[in-house]
Amino acid sequence: MREFILLASRARTSPDFDLFNLKEAGRMDLVCRAVSSAFFTSDNLRTDTILNVVLNGPDYPPKIITFSGNSLRNIYPDEISIAGYILQALKKGKNLKLNEQIDVTDGVKISKKSFEAQVKEKSSDKKLIYLNDKGEDIRDIELKDDFVFILGDNLGLPKKTEKFLDRLNAKKVKLGSVSLFSSHAIILVHNEFDRTV
Amino acid sequence: MREFILLASRARTSPDFDLFNLKEAGRMDLVCRAVSSAFFTSDNLRTDTILNVVLNGPDYPPKIITFSGNSLRNIYPDEISIAGYILQALKKGKNLKLNEQIDVTDGVKISKKSFEAQVKEKSSDKKLIYLNDKGEDIRDIELKDDFVFILGDNLGLPKKTEKFLDRLNAKKVKLGSVSLFSSHAIILVHNEFDRTV
Repeated sequence: MREFILLASRARTSPDFDLFNLKEAGRMDLVCRAVSSAFFTSDNLRTDTILNVVLNGPDYPPKIITFSGNSLRNIYPDEISIAGYILQALKKGKNLKLNEQIDVTDGVKISKKSFEAQVKEKSSDKKLIYLNDKGEDIRDIELKDDFVFILGDNLGLPKKTEKFLDRLNAKKVKLGSVSLFSSHAIILVHNEFDRTV
Repeated sequence: MREFILLASRARTSPDFDLFNLKEAGRMDLVCRAVSSAFFTSDNLRTDTILNVVLNGPDYPPKIITFSGNSLRNIYPDEISIAGYILQALKKGKNLKLNEQIDVTDGVKISKKSFEAQVKEKSSDKKLIYLNDKGEDIRDIELKDDFVFILGDNLGLPKKTEKFLDRLNAKKVKLGSVSLFSSHAIILVHNEFDRTV
Protein backbone atom coordinates (compact mmCIF):
# COMPACT_ATOMS: atom_id res chain seq x y z
CA MET A 1 0.00 0.00 0.00
CA ARG A 2 1.20 3.52 -0.88
CA GLU A 3 0.02 6.06 1.63
CA PHE A 4 0.14 9.85 1.67
CA ILE A 5 -0.88 12.52 4.17
CA LEU A 6 -1.43 15.98 2.70
CA LEU A 7 -1.52 18.90 5.13
CA ALA A 8 -3.67 21.58 3.49
CA SER A 9 -3.33 24.28 6.12
CA ARG A 10 -5.78 26.77 4.66
CA ALA A 11 -8.22 24.48 2.82
CA ARG A 12 -11.80 25.34 3.75
CA THR A 13 -13.73 23.06 6.07
CA SER A 14 -17.09 24.83 5.75
CA PRO A 15 -19.25 22.82 3.36
CA ASP A 16 -20.27 25.84 1.33
CA PHE A 17 -17.33 26.76 -0.86
CA ASP A 18 -17.81 27.62 -4.52
CA LEU A 19 -17.00 24.64 -6.77
CA PHE A 20 -16.20 27.08 -9.56
CA ASN A 21 -13.75 29.14 -7.53
CA LEU A 22 -11.57 26.58 -5.78
CA LYS A 23 -8.58 28.91 -5.39
CA GLU A 24 -10.61 31.06 -3.01
CA ALA A 25 -11.50 28.04 -0.84
CA GLY A 26 -8.01 27.99 0.70
CA ARG A 27 -6.39 26.69 -2.49
CA MET A 28 -8.75 23.74 -2.74
CA ASP A 29 -7.59 23.48 -6.39
CA LEU A 30 -4.23 22.21 -5.09
CA VAL A 31 -5.95 19.61 -2.95
CA CYS A 32 -8.03 18.40 -5.90
CA ARG A 33 -5.01 18.05 -8.15
CA ALA A 34 -3.24 16.06 -5.42
CA VAL A 35 -6.20 13.65 -5.23
CA SER A 36 -6.15 13.35 -9.02
CA SER A 37 -2.41 12.60 -9.03
CA ALA A 38 -2.74 10.08 -6.22
CA PHE A 39 -5.35 7.87 -7.88
CA PHE A 40 -5.34 8.24 -11.64
CA THR A 41 -3.24 6.68 -14.32
CA SER A 42 -4.43 7.28 -17.87
CA ASP A 43 -6.38 4.04 -17.96
CA ASN A 44 -6.89 2.92 -14.39
CA LEU A 45 -7.39 3.78 -10.75
CA ARG A 46 -4.51 3.14 -8.38
CA THR A 47 -6.19 0.68 -6.03
CA ASP A 48 -3.05 0.34 -3.90
CA THR A 49 -3.11 3.95 -2.66
CA ILE A 50 -4.53 5.82 0.32
CA LEU A 51 -4.54 9.61 0.59
CA ASN A 52 -5.42 11.39 3.81
CA VAL A 53 -6.15 15.08 3.25
CA VAL A 54 -5.98 17.21 6.39
CA LEU A 55 -8.04 20.38 5.93
CA ASN A 56 -7.23 23.04 8.47
CA GLY A 57 -8.99 26.12 7.09
CA PRO A 58 -12.17 27.77 8.46
CA ASP A 59 -14.79 27.16 9.83
CA TYR A 60 -14.74 23.60 11.21
CA PRO A 61 -11.13 22.39 11.40
CA PRO A 62 -9.51 19.99 11.73
CA LYS A 63 -11.04 17.60 9.22
CA ILE A 64 -9.41 14.63 7.54
CA ILE A 65 -10.84 13.18 4.35
CA THR A 66 -9.44 9.75 3.57
CA PHE A 67 -9.60 8.43 0.01
CA SER A 68 -8.95 4.69 -0.47
CA GLY A 69 -8.20 3.64 -4.03
CA ASN A 70 -9.38 0.08 -3.54
CA SER A 71 -12.98 1.14 -2.98
CA LEU A 72 -13.34 4.45 -4.87
CA ARG A 73 -16.11 4.39 -7.48
CA ASN A 74 -17.33 6.84 -10.14
CA ILE A 75 -14.59 9.35 -9.51
CA TYR A 76 -13.14 11.52 -12.28
CA PRO A 77 -9.73 13.21 -12.40
CA ASP A 78 -10.83 16.81 -12.97
CA GLU A 79 -10.74 19.39 -10.20
CA ILE A 80 -14.46 20.13 -10.03
CA SER A 81 -15.49 16.46 -9.83
CA ILE A 82 -13.05 15.86 -6.98
CA ALA A 83 -14.09 19.07 -5.23
CA GLY A 84 -17.66 17.75 -5.36
CA TYR A 85 -16.55 14.73 -3.30
CA ILE A 86 -14.81 17.00 -0.81
CA LEU A 87 -17.89 19.19 -0.47
CA GLN A 88 -20.07 16.12 0.08
CA ALA A 89 -17.65 14.87 2.75
CA LEU A 90 -17.58 18.23 4.55
CA LYS A 91 -21.39 18.37 4.55
CA LYS A 92 -21.72 14.90 6.03
CA GLY A 93 -18.94 15.52 8.54
CA LYS A 94 -19.88 19.02 9.62
CA ASN A 95 -20.96 18.06 13.13
CA LEU A 96 -18.52 15.26 13.87
CA LYS A 97 -17.10 15.05 17.37
CA LEU A 98 -13.35 14.90 17.93
CA ASN A 99 -11.85 11.64 16.61
CA GLU A 100 -15.19 10.47 15.23
CA GLN A 101 -15.11 9.08 11.65
CA ILE A 102 -17.92 8.36 9.19
CA ASP A 103 -18.29 6.95 5.69
CA VAL A 104 -19.14 9.47 2.98
CA THR A 105 -19.36 7.28 -0.10
CA ASP A 106 -17.45 4.30 -1.52
CA GLY A 107 -13.78 4.84 -0.73
CA VAL A 108 -14.24 8.18 1.04
CA LYS A 109 -14.37 8.73 4.81
CA ILE A 110 -14.22 11.88 6.91
CA SER A 111 -13.06 12.34 10.47
CA LYS A 112 -12.56 15.21 12.85
CA LYS A 113 -8.98 14.66 13.81
CA SER A 114 -5.83 16.74 13.95
CA PHE A 115 -2.86 16.29 11.65
CA GLU A 116 -0.70 15.54 14.71
CA ALA A 117 -3.06 12.83 15.99
CA GLN A 118 -3.26 11.22 12.56
CA VAL A 119 0.50 11.22 12.08
CA LYS A 120 1.17 9.83 15.57
CA GLU A 121 -1.33 7.06 14.94
CA LYS A 122 0.36 6.12 11.64
CA SER A 123 3.81 6.25 13.22
CA SER A 124 3.00 3.28 15.45
CA ASP A 125 3.34 0.81 12.58
CA LYS A 126 4.56 2.80 9.57
CA LYS A 127 7.68 4.72 8.64
CA LEU A 128 7.07 8.45 8.24
CA ILE A 129 8.73 10.23 5.32
CA TYR A 130 8.61 13.93 4.56
CA LEU A 131 9.89 15.89 1.63
CA ASN A 132 12.75 18.23 2.33
CA ASP A 133 15.50 19.50 0.06
CA LYS A 134 18.13 18.40 2.60
CA GLY A 135 16.83 14.83 2.58
CA GLU A 136 18.21 11.73 0.92
CA ASP A 137 17.43 11.33 -2.78
CA ILE A 138 14.37 9.10 -3.20
CA ARG A 139 16.26 7.21 -5.91
CA ASP A 140 18.82 6.11 -3.34
CA ILE A 141 16.43 4.60 -0.82
CA GLU A 142 14.65 1.29 -0.88
CA LEU A 143 10.94 2.01 -1.07
CA LYS A 144 8.78 -0.04 1.25
CA ASP A 145 5.08 -0.60 1.57
CA ASP A 146 4.96 0.69 5.10
CA PHE A 147 6.10 4.21 4.18
CA VAL A 148 3.73 7.13 4.70
CA PHE A 149 4.66 10.23 2.69
CA ILE A 150 3.76 13.53 4.34
CA LEU A 151 3.28 16.52 2.08
CA GLY A 152 2.50 20.18 2.58
CA ASP A 153 0.52 22.51 0.35
CA ASN A 154 2.23 25.10 -1.87
CA LEU A 155 3.75 26.71 1.22
CA GLY A 156 5.42 23.43 2.19
CA LEU A 157 5.35 22.07 5.72
CA PRO A 158 5.65 24.64 8.52
CA LYS A 159 8.95 24.51 10.46
CA LYS A 160 7.16 23.47 13.66
CA THR A 161 5.55 20.57 11.77
CA GLU A 162 8.96 19.46 10.53
CA LYS A 163 10.22 19.54 14.14
CA PHE A 164 7.22 17.50 15.24
CA LEU A 165 7.98 14.95 12.49
CA ASP A 166 11.66 14.85 13.45
CA ARG A 167 10.66 13.95 17.02
CA LEU A 168 8.72 11.02 15.57
CA ASN A 169 11.88 9.93 13.78
CA ALA A 170 10.52 10.77 10.31
CA LYS A 171 12.93 10.42 7.41
CA LYS A 172 13.66 13.37 5.09
CA VAL A 173 13.58 12.59 1.38
CA LYS A 174 14.10 14.82 -1.65
CA LEU A 175 12.70 14.31 -5.14
CA GLY A 176 14.96 16.66 -7.05
CA SER A 177 16.27 20.18 -6.95
CA VAL A 178 13.03 22.09 -7.59
CA SER A 179 10.27 22.92 -5.13
CA LEU A 180 7.07 21.24 -6.32
CA PHE A 181 3.35 21.21 -5.66
CA SER A 182 2.13 18.19 -3.71
CA SER A 183 0.30 16.93 -6.81
CA HIS A 184 3.62 16.85 -8.66
CA ALA A 185 5.46 15.24 -5.74
CA ILE A 186 2.88 12.44 -5.65
CA ILE A 187 3.49 11.70 -9.36
CA LEU A 188 7.21 11.38 -8.70
CA VAL A 189 6.74 9.13 -5.67
CA HIS A 190 4.34 6.90 -7.63
CA ASN A 191 6.85 6.67 -10.48
CA GLU A 192 9.53 5.47 -8.06
CA PHE A 193 7.20 2.82 -6.67
CA ASP A 194 6.05 1.83 -10.19
CA ARG A 195 9.67 1.20 -11.10
CA THR A 196 10.08 -1.28 -8.23
CA VAL A 197 7.15 -3.47 -9.33
CA MET B 1 14.69 25.19 -23.60
CA ARG B 2 12.30 22.31 -22.78
CA GLU B 3 9.66 21.90 -25.42
CA PHE B 4 6.50 19.79 -25.55
CA ILE B 5 3.83 19.18 -28.18
CA LEU B 6 0.53 17.84 -26.83
CA LEU B 7 -1.86 16.30 -29.34
CA ALA B 8 -5.35 16.73 -27.88
CA SER B 9 -7.33 14.95 -30.58
CA ARG B 10 -10.80 15.74 -29.32
CA ALA B 11 -10.25 19.06 -27.52
CA ARG B 12 -12.83 21.61 -28.66
CA THR B 13 -11.80 24.40 -30.99
CA SER B 14 -15.12 26.30 -30.88
CA PRO B 15 -14.67 29.26 -28.54
CA ASP B 16 -17.88 28.57 -26.65
CA PHE B 17 -17.19 25.64 -24.33
CA ASP B 18 -18.34 25.69 -20.73
CA LEU B 19 -15.52 26.66 -18.37
CA PHE B 20 -17.29 24.75 -15.61
CA ASN B 21 -17.64 21.52 -17.57
CA LEU B 22 -14.23 21.00 -19.16
CA LYS B 23 -14.60 17.22 -19.46
CA GLU B 24 -17.37 17.73 -22.00
CA ALA B 25 -15.19 20.04 -24.11
CA GLY B 26 -13.23 17.08 -25.49
CA ARG B 27 -11.41 16.49 -22.20
CA MET B 28 -10.17 20.05 -21.97
CA ASP B 29 -9.51 19.30 -18.27
CA LEU B 30 -6.60 17.10 -19.35
CA VAL B 31 -5.19 19.88 -21.50
CA CYS B 32 -5.43 22.36 -18.62
CA ARG B 33 -3.63 20.04 -16.22
CA ALA B 34 -0.90 19.54 -18.81
CA VAL B 35 -0.41 23.32 -19.07
CA SER B 36 -0.31 23.52 -15.28
CA SER B 37 2.31 20.76 -15.08
CA ALA B 38 4.41 22.31 -17.82
CA PHE B 39 4.82 25.73 -16.22
CA PHE B 40 4.32 25.63 -12.49
CA THR B 41 6.62 24.76 -9.67
CA SER B 42 5.32 25.53 -6.19
CA ASP B 43 7.00 28.92 -6.12
CA ASN B 44 7.86 29.85 -9.67
CA LEU B 45 7.05 29.70 -13.35
CA ARG B 46 9.24 27.54 -15.56
CA THR B 47 10.55 30.22 -17.92
CA ASP B 48 12.61 27.69 -19.88
CA THR B 49 9.57 25.78 -21.21
CA ILE B 50 7.39 25.93 -24.33
CA LEU B 51 4.19 23.92 -24.68
CA ASN B 52 2.36 23.63 -28.00
CA VAL B 53 -1.18 22.30 -27.57
CA VAL B 54 -2.73 20.93 -30.76
CA LEU B 55 -6.53 21.00 -30.49
CA ASN B 56 -8.23 18.83 -33.08
CA GLY B 57 -11.83 18.71 -31.86
CA PRO B 58 -14.83 20.50 -33.43
CA ASP B 59 -15.64 23.01 -34.90
CA TYR B 60 -12.53 24.82 -36.17
CA PRO B 61 -9.59 22.40 -36.16
CA PRO B 62 -6.69 22.30 -36.34
CA LYS B 63 -5.60 24.93 -33.84
CA ILE B 64 -2.30 25.17 -32.00
CA ILE B 65 -2.00 27.23 -28.85
CA THR B 66 1.61 27.89 -27.91
CA PHE B 67 2.47 28.83 -24.33
CA SER B 68 5.97 30.27 -23.70
CA GLY B 69 7.07 30.29 -20.09
CA ASN B 70 9.48 33.18 -20.54
CA SER B 71 6.70 35.64 -21.30
CA LEU B 72 3.61 34.23 -19.54
CA ARG B 73 2.06 36.67 -17.06
CA ASN B 74 -0.78 36.49 -14.52
CA ILE B 75 -1.42 32.81 -15.09
CA TYR B 76 -2.65 30.49 -12.32
CA PRO B 77 -2.25 26.73 -12.08
CA ASP B 78 -5.91 25.76 -11.66
CA GLU B 79 -7.92 24.23 -14.50
CA ILE B 80 -10.50 26.98 -14.87
CA SER B 81 -7.94 29.81 -15.01
CA ILE B 82 -5.99 27.99 -17.72
CA ALA B 83 -9.18 27.11 -19.61
CA GLY B 84 -9.95 30.84 -19.61
CA TYR B 85 -6.72 31.46 -21.53
CA ILE B 86 -7.59 28.71 -24.01
CA LEU B 87 -11.06 30.15 -24.55
CA GLN B 88 -9.59 33.61 -25.12
CA ALA B 89 -7.12 32.16 -27.65
CA LEU B 90 -9.83 30.25 -29.53
CA LYS B 91 -11.97 33.40 -29.70
CA LYS B 92 -9.14 35.50 -31.13
CA GLY B 93 -8.06 32.74 -33.49
CA LYS B 94 -11.48 31.65 -34.73
CA ASN B 95 -11.06 32.98 -38.26
CA LEU B 96 -7.34 32.39 -38.80
CA LYS B 97 -6.25 31.21 -42.22
CA LEU B 98 -4.11 28.08 -42.56
CA ASN B 99 -0.61 28.59 -41.10
CA GLU B 100 -1.45 32.08 -39.83
CA GLN B 101 -0.42 32.83 -36.22
CA ILE B 102 -1.42 35.67 -33.89
CA ASP B 103 -0.60 36.83 -30.37
CA VAL B 104 -3.32 36.27 -27.79
CA THR B 105 -1.74 37.70 -24.66
CA ASP B 106 1.74 37.69 -23.06
CA GLY B 107 3.26 34.28 -23.69
CA VAL B 108 0.28 32.86 -25.57
CA LYS B 109 -0.08 32.58 -29.35
CA ILE B 110 -2.55 30.72 -31.53
CA SER B 111 -2.16 29.41 -35.04
CA LYS B 112 -4.21 27.39 -37.48
CA LYS B 113 -1.78 24.64 -38.26
CA SER B 114 -1.88 20.85 -38.31
CA PHE B 115 -0.04 18.63 -35.85
CA GLU B 116 1.90 17.12 -38.77
CA ALA B 117 3.00 20.52 -40.09
CA GLN B 118 4.07 21.65 -36.62
CA VAL B 119 6.05 18.48 -35.97
CA LYS B 120 7.76 18.54 -39.38
CA GLU B 121 8.75 22.16 -38.79
CA LYS B 122 10.28 21.32 -35.41
CA SER B 123 12.08 18.27 -36.81
CA SER B 124 14.27 20.47 -38.99
CA ASP B 125 16.39 21.58 -36.06
CA LYS B 126 15.20 19.58 -33.04
CA LYS B 127 15.19 15.95 -32.00
CA LEU B 128 11.68 14.49 -31.74
CA ILE B 129 10.91 12.22 -28.79
CA TYR B 130 7.68 10.38 -28.14
CA LEU B 131 6.56 8.31 -25.23
CA ASN B 132 6.13 4.62 -25.84
CA ASP B 133 6.41 1.68 -23.48
CA LYS B 134 8.86 -0.04 -25.83
CA GLY B 135 11.18 2.98 -25.79
CA GLU B 136 14.46 3.52 -23.99
CA ASP B 137 14.20 4.47 -20.32
CA ILE B 138 14.44 8.26 -19.98
CA ARG B 139 16.91 7.73 -17.13
CA ASP B 140 19.33 6.07 -19.55
CA ILE B 141 19.46 8.83 -22.12
CA GLU B 142 21.34 12.09 -22.07
CA LEU B 143 18.75 14.88 -22.08
CA LYS B 144 19.44 17.74 -24.43
CA ASP B 145 17.97 21.16 -24.93
CA ASP B 146 16.98 20.49 -28.52
CA PHE B 147 14.56 17.67 -27.63
CA VAL B 148 10.85 18.11 -28.33
CA PHE B 149 8.63 15.73 -26.37
CA ILE B 150 5.45 14.69 -28.15
CA LEU B 151 2.54 13.58 -26.00
CA GLY B 152 -0.94 12.27 -26.63
CA ASP B 153 -4.08 12.76 -24.55
CA ASN B 154 -5.47 10.00 -22.34
CA LEU B 155 -5.86 7.77 -25.39
CA GLY B 156 -2.15 8.09 -26.19
CA LEU B 157 -0.89 8.77 -29.68
CA PRO B 158 -2.76 7.08 -32.52
CA LYS B 159 -0.81 4.30 -34.30
CA LYS B 160 -0.71 6.28 -37.56
CA THR B 161 0.80 9.24 -35.68
CA GLU B 162 3.49 6.97 -34.24
CA LYS B 163 4.28 5.77 -37.77
CA PHE B 164 4.46 9.37 -38.96
CA LEU B 165 6.88 10.14 -36.11
CA ASP B 166 8.96 7.06 -36.91
CA ARG B 167 9.37 8.29 -40.48
CA LEU B 168 10.75 11.54 -39.05
CA ASN B 169 13.26 9.50 -37.08
CA ALA B 170 11.67 10.28 -33.71
CA LYS B 171 13.07 8.51 -30.66
CA LYS B 172 10.85 6.38 -28.40
CA VAL B 173 11.28 6.96 -24.69
CA LYS B 174 9.54 5.41 -21.69
CA LEU B 175 9.05 6.96 -18.27
CA GLY B 176 8.18 3.84 -16.31
CA SER B 177 5.87 0.88 -16.44
CA VAL B 178 2.52 2.61 -16.01
CA SER B 179 0.47 4.45 -18.63
CA LEU B 180 0.14 8.08 -17.54
CA PHE B 181 -1.77 11.22 -18.39
CA SER B 182 0.24 13.80 -20.32
CA SER B 183 0.18 16.10 -17.28
CA HIS B 184 1.93 13.38 -15.27
CA ALA B 185 4.40 12.60 -18.05
CA ILE B 186 5.41 16.27 -18.19
CA ILE B 187 6.17 16.25 -14.44
CA LEU B 188 8.45 13.24 -14.89
CA VAL B 189 10.26 14.76 -17.88
CA HIS B 190 10.78 18.03 -15.98
CA ASN B 191 12.16 16.12 -13.02
CA GLU B 192 14.71 14.42 -15.27
CA PHE B 193 15.78 17.76 -16.69
CA ASP B 194 15.84 19.35 -13.21
CA ARG B 195 18.25 16.65 -12.11
CA THR B 196 20.71 17.55 -14.88
CA VAL B 197 20.97 21.22 -13.90
